[in-house]
Amino acid sequence: MGFLHHLQRCNRHDLSGYLPFRVDGLVVGRIRPVFAELLSAWPAVFSVSPDRVDLAVETSDVAERSAAVAGVLQALVAQGAISRLHGEQYGVTTDSRDDALLLIDRAAAPCFGIRAFGQHLNGYVRDGGSYRMWIGRRAADRMIYPGKLDHLVAGGLPHGIGLAENLAKECWEEAAIPPELALRAIPVGAVSYITESERGLKPDTLYCYDLELPMDFQPRCMDGEVDAFYLWPVEQVMEVVRDSQEFKQNCNLVIIDFLIRHGFIKPEHDEYLDLVVGLHPPLP
Amino acid sequence: MGFLHHLQRCNRHDLSGYLPFRVDGLVVGRIRPVFAELLSAWPAVFSVSPDRVDLAVETSDVAERSAAVAGVLQALVAQGAISRLHGEQYGVTTDSRDDALLLIDRAAAPCFGIRAFGQHLNGYVRDGGSYRMWIGRRAADRMIYPGKLDHLVAGGLPHGIGLAENLAKECWEEAAIPPELALRAIPVGAVSYITESERGLKPDTLYCYDLELPMDFQPRCMDGEVDAFYLWPVEQVMEVVRDSQEFKQNCNLVIIDFLIRHGFIKPEHDEYLDLVVGLHPPLP
Repeated sequence: MGFLHHLQRCNRHDLSGYLPFRVDGLVVGRIRPVFAELLSAWPAVFSVSPDRVDLAVETSDVAERSAAVAGVLQALVAQGAISRLHGEQYGVTTDSRDDALLLIDRAAAPCFGIRAFGQHLNGYVRDGGSYRMWIGRRAADRMIYPGKLDHLVAGGLPHGIGLAENLAKECWEEAAIPPELALRAIPVGAVSYITESERGLKPDTLYCYDLELPMDFQPRCMDGEVDAFYLWPVEQVMEVVRDSQEFKQNCNLVIIDFLIRHGFIKPEHDEYLDLVVGLHPPLP
Repeated sequence: MGFLHHLQRCNRHDLSGYLPFRVDGLVVGRIRPVFAELLSAWPAVFSVSPDRVDLAVETSDVAERSAAVAGVLQALVAQGAISRLHGEQYGVTTDSRDDALLLIDRAAAPCFGIRAFGQHLNGYVRDGGSYRMWIGRRAADRMIYPGKLDHLVAGGLPHGIGLAENLAKECWEEAAIPPELALRAIPVGAVSYITESERGLKPDTLYCYDLELPMDFQPRCMDGEVDAFYLWPVEQVMEVVRDSQEFKQNCNLVIIDFLIRHGFIKPEHDEYLDLVVGLHPPLP
């Protein structure tokens, strides 16, 4: 096996079935017709036509708009159409996550097919040219990807918190990395993919970070997300990524990017240019 | 000014005027109609129709095909339609540069709009968290980009030589970097762009390398390409890239990639995601 199959798995989607979701006339997401039909029960909030869904709330105030949409989502949870809400708000944007036109609960983001953002951190120790990477095993009771391998630190980016601040928070919660150490994390780029979940479309962008950790650093999980941590030679990580689906799906992309940037996947590899391009697809 | 304008400058092209150039029925390039008309004088070598140009040489032997095309190119030089040939052969390929369907002189590559490959090396010294980058000033007598700033080492990839071997050769010729030091260069990815030159279309892919050099290393130019070398703080390099056209055009892209990978351009920069995606466009 190679590495490219992970990019293909993370980018399985068919946009043809979706209706554009517009706010202020800008396309900010994609909605399945079956979900659009549910939304049509709230004509004061959503204007549903055969070829698109528009936010119909008659105010440009982001808090008021978001409250109106949150009311609909709570009703949909009560109906059983959405299983639960997450409690974290994602900003709805065409471009930068700072310029939110509307806030939507994280759990409902795929229903609207809005862009979501996350942060993944490659935590490693280095001994000369030899690298070892810290890997987590997700707790068996997780709703998403129970028991799968995961990054040392990874999380979604809610609205209203800066990148550095959120990373420091996740570093502490997920691995007990203190803030002064988290500050040393180097932002090294981003990977993107467009996938389909049961709930809908997920055009995701993950900001990637490298953090060289001291040899004697020992992660501890503070929030119950992880059952165990392993410190593996990067060659072992590379084999597991290449030959299995052991990692939570999107982690594979961030690790492949790490392996390319540090020269472990070499340009002679026949998938090299497809990987470099495929990790950074233009989003719709 | 920002960084994105360099990506826009390197990607100015309009494919609509071009005719597909096919070898064995595969589209391997794009040809301007005016050049296609010149080629139509050699119907045994090129089959020119209103909507495409096909290689018409009746053999699948790459050497024989390439000799037939080289004969046409020499005649075009004699006519003055092409100013001169380069002497290096580029492999014509739809995908990997190892699987050449035909060889074409490097100088004529844009006339056929074939994919070309190069290597650029970021040579730097590091003192704790502080980086300085070695920069060359191109000789004033160069045909291309005289007097412009350039990478310490950069060159095209001719057919029939491996990546590591060509890099070592360029390292020696352009900066007197000995092979044992060149071997330490880390392949870190690739950037691509599609630009138009006077001669035609250039879909180029540059393999990128980082080489940390010893503090006392002093480059020397062995082939007359460079007039002077400078060792600049990376912050100075970043300012010059951001605010000027002082660098040879495609160097800007490789340096922007370096600045992103090493955390000098930060994810808070409003162009960040456009840069990450724009450095890796899918080629036609």
